[in-house]
Amino acid sequence: MQANEQEFRQVEQFLKDHDDFLVVSHVQPDGDAVSSTLVVGWLLSCLGKNYVMVNEGPIPQRMSYLLHSDRIMDLSVTPLSKPYKHIICIDCADFRRVGKTSDYFASDAEILNIDHHPTNDGFGSINLIVPGAAATVQVLYDFVKWLNLRLDHDIATAIYTGLLTDTGGFRYSSTSPSVMAIASDLLKYGVDGPGLSQLLLEEMTLPQIRLLTIALNGLQMSEDGKISWVTIDDEDMKQSGAIHEDLEGIVNYPRNIQGVEVGLLFKVIDENTVKVSMRSAGKVDVAAVAHSFGGGGHVRAAGVRMQGSLAEVVSQIVEQVKSRL
Amino acid sequence: MQANEQEFRQVEQFLKDHDDFLVVSHVQPDGDAVSSTLVVGWLLSCLGKNYVMVNEGPIPQRMSYLLHSDRIMDLSVTPLSKPYKHIICIDCADFRRVGKTSDYFASDAEILNIDHHPTNDGFGSINLIVPGAAATVQVLYDFVKWLNLRLDHDIATAIYTGLLTDTGGFRYSSTSPSVMAIASDLLKYGVDGPGLSQLLLEEMTLPQIRLLTIALNGLQMSEDGKISWVTIDDEDMKQSGAIHEDLEGIVNYPRNIQGVEVGLLFKVIDENTVKVSMRSAGKVDVAAVAHSFGGGGHVRAAGVRMQGSLAEVVSQIVEQVKSRL
Repeated sequence: MQANEQEFRQVEQFLKDHDDFLVVSHVQPDGDAVSSTLVVGWLLSCLGKNYVMVNEGPIPQRMSYLLHSDRIMDLSVTPLSKPYKHIICIDCADFRRVGKTSDYFASDAEILNIDHHPTNDGFGSINLIVPGAAATVQVLYDFVKWLNLRLDHDIATAIYTGLLTDTGGFRYSSTSPSVMAIASDLLKYGVDGPGLSQLLLEEMTLPQIRLLTIALNGLQMSEDGKISWVTIDDEDMKQSGAIHEDLEGIVNYPRNIQGVEVGLLFKVIDENTVKVSMRSAGKVDVAAVAHSFGGGGHVRAAGVRMQGSLAEVVSQIVEQVKSRL
Repeated sequence: MQANEQEFRQVEQFLKDHDDFLVVSHVQPDGDAVSSTLVVGWLLSCLGKNYVMVNEGPIPQRMSYLLHSDRIMDLSVTPLSKPYKHIICIDCADFRRVGKTSDYFASDAEILNIDHHPTNDGFGSINLIVPGAAATVQVLYDFVKWLNLRLDHDIATAIYTGLLTDTGGFRYSSTSPSVMAIASDLLKYGVDGPGLSQLLLEEMTLPQIRLLTIALNGLQMSEDGKISWVTIDDEDMKQSGAIHEDLEGIVNYPRNIQGVEVGLLFKVIDENTVKVSMRSAGKVDVAAVAHSFGGGGHVRAAGVRMQGSLAEVVSQIVEQVKSRL
């Protein structure tokens, strides 16, 4: 599942041949996106190169412990001073994922595309795509080792962060023997794995826990116990003081109930729009359910925006899921 | 942190010198206790020995996927036919932890005591205690490797189960480089790590989620946001249909709120008795709090049974915690 020698050599050549890189990851960056950006920045520093790290928006507050995360420029606050010719795109499955940062790509830009998404369309001039990797930091870890660079505590912490968040704390199916071997190696550099797990995976804000409580109070089950769902509307958001990203993870509660095949979260957007998040234990292909209403996703995790009242959308989706059980 | 050569040799000798062993773990067995029992059973089979695996009570239903877990006798259902002279005690910090099974220890019994608890008092005739190990299965893994025995899928699954449950899914401070290296090795035998994580760490029963909901509805915070607590009484248990073990994990919700130093769970036992579970983020030594009321535990996790009404106990504990902040 590792990249081959030739791919690594090509990437090395690209980095050595040029200077003054723009390093960018996807919009609304997650742990892997932020960490990968920092690893590439560190790598370029090791090679004595100039570079700028950037993102369309801000870096999540929760990741401010990552060394140099404050150097990742927030394009929504500070525009770049010039266009760049040599671009490194990280963890972006397609070109649109870089967002408005692409306004600063020179018209003759050469793009190095480093990613682990199986759906990556290879939009780069050079592509380093390893679909078997659990996270982009895993691809970068292998590359760093191949280059014989010495990790330090801070960069090991960044890589651990990416692994931890992209595998849901070593729980997703991407958790391979290599992932665990890398985690083992990183801990040897003194990474505070347990502290990172607490901060990134366990900790909830008070608004988050209030929102969870409201959602659980309205938990519904189908008669056969195979479908479970929660609903959240504007009033719930207001009452809890929660923000949009606090919705994340809530759909796992109905999904994780013993015997449940499909867990659903219905979020009212406005009086005629509902966003549906779906999680499957495996039997039901929720991507197909989403697709039948114009949405998309994966077999076990999918979503769709639908027109209609909350009651209408709930009924339509639950019926559709039932028919596939 | 591994056991030394000499300790392993002593254990090997004990196993080779005798036959007809009684293999027992602690009362109310958890993932590590059940898995360790099975690993020792497998090891004895490999050595061609006779043995009986036993526990004072039943094996948790959730662990019935473990091969031969149905062979661990439940003493509360089936008494043993005779006393045993050669005993292997697993994951028991002291002798009392074996419970009523000790009724079947011959008066001249020789005990092999295998454990990882730092507080183990060395009650065995032979002791293999590795305080640096995250779980007793880790001690056994090292021993199995030292013996040059070949793992298979089923036994690797048992070891992974013990590691997963005793490290809270690779999140506790015991999650060392060796733990991750062992996990990596075990996954190579085709262990379904993600499936086990789902089953053992993510899944909740409907009564469990109902109880959580009730608890969260009553979530309280101190004015400075540093102490948070929930309370559960008999009516809550009845209403949710929950059983005692469903209480586990609930105290983590108040504890995991951003900014909270101490999370508390107050469980009403009867009108004049309250059981208190305490979890600390690290600043407050909750063992000291528990100790001041006659309880015990560790710096970050402790508990105590107190006399008084719920309101009285809450007030006493919260005041005591406040004074230590």
